[in-house]
Amino acid sequence: MSKNSLELTRSHKQFDGYTRFYTHQSETCRAPMKFSAYLPPESEKRKLPVLYWLSGLTCSEEIFMTEAHAQAMAKKYGVILVVPDTSPRDTGIPGEDDRYDLGSGAGFYVDATESKWSKHYQMDSYVTKELRELAESVLPIDSSKRGIFGHSMGGHGALVLGLRNPELYRSISAFAPICAPSNAPWGELAFTEYLGNDPSQWAQYDASFLIQKAQIKTPILIDQGLDDEFLAEQLGTDQFEKILSTINYPVTLRRQAGYDHSYYFISTFIEDHIKFHAELLR
Amino acid sequence: MSKNSLELTRSHKQFDGYTRFYTHQSETCRAPMKFSAYLPPESEKRKLPVLYWLSGLTCSEEIFMTEAHAQAMAKKYGVILVVPDTSPRDTGIPGEDDRYDLGSGAGFYVDATESKWSKHYQMDSYVTKELRELAESVLPIDSSKRGIFGHSMGGHGALVLGLRNPELYRSISAFAPICAPSNAPWGELAFTEYLGNDPSQWAQYDASFLIQKAQIKTPILIDQGLDDEFLAEQLGTDQFEKILSTINYPVTLRRQAGYDHSYYFISTFIEDHIKFHAELLR
Repeated sequence: MSKNSLELTRSHKQFDGYTRFYTHQSETCRAPMKFSAYLPPESEKRKLPVLYWLSGLTCSEEIFMTEAHAQAMAKKYGVILVVPDTSPRDTGIPGEDDRYDLGSGAGFYVDATESKWSKHYQMDSYVTKELRELAESVLPIDSSKRGIFGHSMGGHGALVLGLRNPELYRSISAFAPICAPSNAPWGELAFTEYLGNDPSQWAQYDASFLIQKAQIKTPILIDQGLDDEFLAEQLGTDQFEKILSTINYPVTLRRQAGYDHSYYFISTFIEDHIKFHAELLR
Repeated sequence: MSKNSLELTRSHKQFDGYTRFYTHQSETCRAPMKFSAYLPPESEKRKLPVLYWLSGLTCSEEIFMTEAHAQAMAKKYGVILVVPDTSPRDTGIPGEDDRYDLGSGAGFYVDATESKWSKHYQMDSYVTKELRELAESVLPIDSSKRGIFGHSMGGHGALVLGLRNPELYRSISAFAPICAPSNAPWGELAFTEYLGNDPSQWAQYDASFLIQKAQIKTPILIDQGLDDEFLAEQLGTDQFEKILSTINYPVTLRRQAGYDHSYYFISTFIEDHIKFHAELLR
């Protein structure tokens, strides 16, 4: 768990609590990893529920903390926020920085099996085990109350890790998630690189497959902007909704007219999401 | 006023309104200039008060819109936000990009008189005249209801432009402003470069002098974090407060324990500031 290597690199007082940035040596990714956390003032008195936020392509552990306008809502609803970086970085893997949609900033929340990436790109295990255990050992988190949410690639991550681990996460939400990565350019590239050429291996990380097998139906909220520049080609929202219509898994999928793929969209609906989680984790 | 050159470069729906980015050819700065605006949904029905936000060193017209968490409050209190860039850019002046505290990103909201800078660096006239007239001709602004606020160098700008133009701005507020620039390294460098070696020329852009001469006492709110890394050397808050104690100009100056110089601090108190302006502009 590498608790001993944990370093607090920055702490900013915000809304009477603290937005903090950490680095630590990850055993899972065999690399230094970064994450951020927001601790609302109430966390000084008692343990609180935690929401894990997974960010999208090109993002780090910082952008959610600066641009999502989430901290005021985390204070209002009494939850701790934990935000990992989107991949290991500076691992020395050839070409890791060459593309915005693969390698650095693009871990896709899978455990890579292809030898080129598998030594370091273990973001599934990192998020669901190492980071979780580390955060919950050093922050005042009530580990019986855990939700997961994210955006775009991180919306995919939240759906997939939430559906795979219903015993860990009691609530799931996503902004503009990649709902059917096996059938879209971003997902096909990443899955081929990280998981290999056999698409049967991809289903374990594809929300449109996982949701059909789910035994425990963790509540899910999804917001999708209708002016999202990636909606048609990358996100698979229609395909996902078609599947939902054939199974008995109630998902709240809201289409928001006029909104795009940016944090301007996320900030608009962040209160709804944090409230959704907080009420389920009460 | 160059209304004809105005170009809308981006528009993001946010909180039922729009965060927009513009560029235009500035006659005052003889260069292309950028600004952003937030239009709350109420602005589709009627003209609203406007708050001009002036940003700090190294900032552009974008960071306030991404990091201040202001748009939800602009919607709540019914005000339009307009945010200029902090200087002309790519003017060809030798060394304009060499330092973070001079030239690009560091216009200091003065009209430069030194020949090296004076052709382009006319940020006082740009903000108080050209941008104001342009924004108010194309956006649904009630020009009788105008406030000005800002951060750090832009807090200095808000105090100075507000105090110099009480007929234009009916409310002034600032986060961690440079209150006494003539006596601090940032201010001394910028004033020497833009206004020349004679400190008597600096007083016209120094809030600690201007406030002593003010005939009209526009309401002022200032928030200052006590863990601000620039407080001791650059901001002159104590000097400013000492002057306030000798004159009859009521200023609300709040010291906020634990807060630093960042947008994490600004976001925490942005609602107080927008509410302060909105109530005065009602």
